[in-house]
Amino acid sequence: MSEEDADRDEDDLERVVAEVRDRVDPAAEERTRLREVADRLMDRAEAAATELCADADVLQVGSTARNTWISGDRDIDIFVRFPPELDRETLEEYGLEVGHATLPDGHEEYAEHPYVKGEVEGFDVDVVPCFRLESATEIRSAVDRTPFHTQYLNQRLDDELAGDVRVTKQFLKGIGVYGSDLRTQGFSGYLTELLVCEYGGFRPLLEAAADWHPPVELDPEEHGRVSFDDPLVVIDPTDPERNVAAVCAAENVARFQHYARAFLATPRTDYFDADDPEPLTEAALREHLEQRATTSIAVRFDAPDLVEDQLYPQLYKSLDGITNGLDDRGFDVFRATTFADDTAVVFAELAVSERPAVERHEGPPVHVRDHAAGFYDAYADDPDAYGPFIEDGRYVTERPRSFTTAREYLESDRLFDVGLGAHVETALEDGYEVVVGTEIAALLDEFGTELAAYFEPRP
Amino acid sequence: MSEEDADRDEDDLERVVAEVRDRVDPAAEERTRLREVADRLMDRAEAAATELCADADVLQVGSTARNTWISGDRDIDIFVRFPPELDRETLEEYGLEVGHATLPDGHEEYAEHPYVKGEVEGFDVDVVPCFRLESATEIRSAVDRTPFHTQYLNQRLDDELAGDVRVTKQFLKGIGVYGSDLRTQGFSGYLTELLVCEYGGFRPLLEAAADWHPPVELDPEEHGRVSFDDPLVVIDPTDPERNVAAVCAAENVARFQHYARAFLATPRTDYFDADDPEPLTEAALREHLEQRATTSIAVRFDAPDLVEDQLYPQLYKSLDGITNGLDDRGFDVFRATTFADDTAVVFAELAVSERPAVERHEGPPVHVRDHAAGFYDAYADDPDAYGPFIEDGRYVTERPRSFTTAREYLESDRLFDVGLGAHVETALEDGYEVVVGTEIAALLDEFGTELAAYFEPRP
Repeated sequence: MSEEDADRDEDDLERVVAEVRDRVDPAAEERTRLREVADRLMDRAEAAATELCADADVLQVGSTARNTWISGDRDIDIFVRFPPELDRETLEEYGLEVGHATLPDGHEEYAEHPYVKGEVEGFDVDVVPCFRLESATEIRSAVDRTPFHTQYLNQRLDDELAGDVRVTKQFLKGIGVYGSDLRTQGFSGYLTELLVCEYGGFRPLLEAAADWHPPVELDPEEHGRVSFDDPLVVIDPTDPERNVAAVCAAENVARFQHYARAFLATPRTDYFDADDPEPLTEAALREHLEQRATTSIAVRFDAPDLVEDQLYPQLYKSLDGITNGLDDRGFDVFRATTFADDTAVVFAELAVSERPAVERHEGPPVHVRDHAAGFYDAYADDPDAYGPFIEDGRYVTERPRSFTTAREYLESDRLFDVGLGAHVETALEDGYEVVVGTEIAALLDEFGTELAAYFEPRP
Repeated sequence: MSEEDADRDEDDLERVVAEVRDRVDPAAEERTRLREVADRLMDRAEAAATELCADADVLQVGSTARNTWISGDRDIDIFVRFPPELDRETLEEYGLEVGHATLPDGHEEYAEHPYVKGEVEGFDVDVVPCFRLESATEIRSAVDRTPFHTQYLNQRLDDELAGDVRVTKQFLKGIGVYGSDLRTQGFSGYLTELLVCEYGGFRPLLEAAADWHPPVELDPEEHGRVSFDDPLVVIDPTDPERNVAAVCAAENVARFQHYARAFLATPRTDYFDADDPEPLTEAALREHLEQRATTSIAVRFDAPDLVEDQLYPQLYKSLDGITNGLDDRGFDVFRATTFADDTAVVFAELAVSERPAVERHEGPPVHVRDHAAGFYDAYADDPDAYGPFIEDGRYVTERPRSFTTAREYLESDRLFDVGLGAHVETALEDGYEVVVGTEIAALLDEFGTELAAYFEPRP
C-alpha cells in the first residue's frame, strides 16, 4: 500500500468513527436531564437510607455513572451501601424500604438480593442494596463488587476514552457480540471498558484484536494469581481471582477478530448497525432444502416461562443432548441450532436421516469363554438376528434397529434419555411436535429471522 | 452334570472320533500302494541325483512321509538335497534335471526354486531341490527347512498321535480353517502336527483351545528368543526365530475355539464335514435386501490371472482400500467381503448410500490471521458455498459435495486413489462394473455360494 493510500484509509476510518461518535454520544441536553434525575433520586435514596442506618451511603454505578452510556440508553443504577456488620436479612429489608421510598411506583425484583425497579421520567431505575467492603475480594455477592468497578474506571476513563468506549460498545452491538447474558455469551460493558482502557482506545483495541492468538491474557493491575481456561482472560483489576471475560465464548472472540480486521480493511458505518436478516420466505426455504439435500428436523415445544439467563443455558444443553442422541444413533447431524419465542425449537439438519433395519451388535472376544458363550447362546437361535459370526476374534450379531428414521427416534421416549434442562424436560413432557423436511415451513411465522440467519450464515 | 451324563458324553465323543478315524485313516492297501510308488520314485531320484553330485541324497517329506495324511490325499513330496557348497544356479539346474529324470511326463513350476511336478499312477508328485544344512537356522530358502520338520516330527509322532493328527486336520477342514495359504490364513499341516504333539492328542488340544486366551504362546523346544505380535505363537522347534502360526488370523483362532467348545459340548460327526452352503436363490437374496434395508453394492471385474496366494492378498488389500474410501466419504460400510472366480468382486453392504449435496469444510482458526483471511476470501464470494461462518473459533464453509451416492464414487476415477493391489488396479483399469441393490442378483450365477455365506453368516 502506498503512503497516500494508507493516509486515505486512515482518513476513512477517522471519518467513520467520527460519524458513529456523533450518533452514540449523548447530547448536552440528554446528559443534563439524566444528571438531574439521577441526583434527585440519589438524594431521596440517601435520606431514606441514613434514616434506617446512619452508616449507609448511596452511589450511582453502571454506564450512566461512568459516562460511557450510548445515547438513548436510559438506565440509572443506584446502589445503597450498608456496613458489613449488618446481617443479610436486615440488609434486604432495608434495601427494599429504601427502594420503595426512592421509587414510590416501583416493584420488587430478585437477582442476587431482592431490589426495587421503577420508571421515572422515562428512565429505567434500579435501587439495589449491597455491603460496603474494604476490597472487592471480600464480597459476599456479585453486586458488592459493582461499586469497585465504577470507582476503578472513574479514575481512568477520561472524556476521550469514554467516547471510545461508546464507539466500541456500538461496534460490538453491530456485530452481535455485546452482552454477557447467557444467550449472547459476549462482551460485557465492564469488559469493554477495561479493553478500551488497556489498549488506549477503539482503534488500538481493534488493531490488537485483529492479531490476537487466543488464549489472550490481560492483567491491568498485574496481580493475577489463578490461571483460566478461557479464550480471553482479563483479570479483574478489583479482584485478582476473577476473569472478567469468563462468559465470553470462543466463537464471539473469533467473531470480534474477524470484524476488527474487516473494519480496519474497509471502514464502513454499517458494521455498527445490528441488522437482523429479513425473515426467510417459504420459497427461499424450499430452495435451501433442495440445494442442500440434507434433512431438516425440529423438536418444537412451548417455551418454558423463564428469564433468558435461565432459558438459554437449558436450550443449549438440550441442543447438545439431542444432537448427541441423534449422532449416537447414526443420524449424522450436519449443523444445528436452537431458538425460542413463544415456542422453543431445537433444530437440526441431518446428513443421514434413515438407517438400515439392522444394526451391528459386537459381543465379547470369543476367548472370554463364559461371557462369549452366553452371548452366542442368546443370539444363535434368535430368528430376527443374523449370526453370531466371528470378526477380529469377537462374536458379532446383526439385529433389528429400534429406530430407522430420526423422526421415530425423536418421537420416542428415548428422547428423554439425553441431557435436557429440567424445565425443557418438563415442557417436553407436556407435549412436543416433530417437524421434518418441508414441514419446517411451519416454523417460518414465528422464526423466519432465525431461519434466515441459519440458512444464510454469516461470521 | 451328573457323573453318568459325563460318562455318556465321554462315550459320545469317543464314538464320534472313532467314526471319523475310520473315515480318515488310510487303509492298509492305500498305504502299501503309496509306499511302493514313493519308494520307486525315490530310487529313481537318488540315482539321477548321485550321478550329478556324489554328495546328494533324497528324502520324502510332507504328510505322506509322516504318516499323517488323510485317506484320499495323493501328494508325494520328494526333496533332493545337495551340499551347501553348491551355488544356487547349479542347484536349480541339477534339481530340474533330477526332477525330469524322476517324472518323465512332469512339467516345471516355480516356488522358491523351480521344481518339477507330475502325476504318477494317480499321485501328485513334486520333486524339489534344496540344500542339506546342519540346522534349520542356516537355511537359505523356506524349502530348506522342510526336511528338518519331517525329521523332528518323525521322532515324535507315534501311530496313535499320527491318527489324532489326521482327525484334527479333518476337524480343521470341516470348520474351514485348515490351510496356511493366504486366502484361508488358517492352520498349516505342520502347525496342526505340532499342536497335537504338544497337547498330546486331538481331544486334549480341543480342551486346551476351548480355554485359550490369545495371545497363546507355545515353545515345544523352549528356545524362543523373539516376541511375536500374533494371536497364536508356536515357536518352530527347528528355528527359534520363527512363529509357525504367523499366518493364522485372529478370526481363525477364535473360530477354532468356538468349534472346539461346540464339539466338546455336543460331539457330532458333521463338524468334520466342510459343507458349503447351498447357493443363495434370487428370492432369498431379495428377502435379505428387504429385511436388512441396507444398500448392497459391488465392484466387479475380470479376476487377474494369478495363483491364489498372490490373488487373495491383493483382493483383501483392495477390500480394505475400497471400504476405507467409502467410509471416508460418509458411505458407512456395514459389512463387506471379497470373492473371486472368473470375475472378482469387492462387495460392500452400506448403512448409508446417499449423502447431502453439501459438505462441511473446516477452515483455520480465525486467529491464524493470514491463513484464515485467505480461507475467508476464497469462499466469501463463492455463490455455491454457504458461509464462511464461525464455529468454535474456526471458519467453516459448506460446499457442494463431489459425490452424493456411493455408486457415483465407485464409478469415478477417485476409486484409483485407494490402496489396491497392483494387478487389481490393472484389472480395474481394463474396466469394471458397479452393481447396486437388487442388481446384485447378477452375481448369483457365479457367486451364489459366497453370497449365501455372506447373508447367512456362521461362526
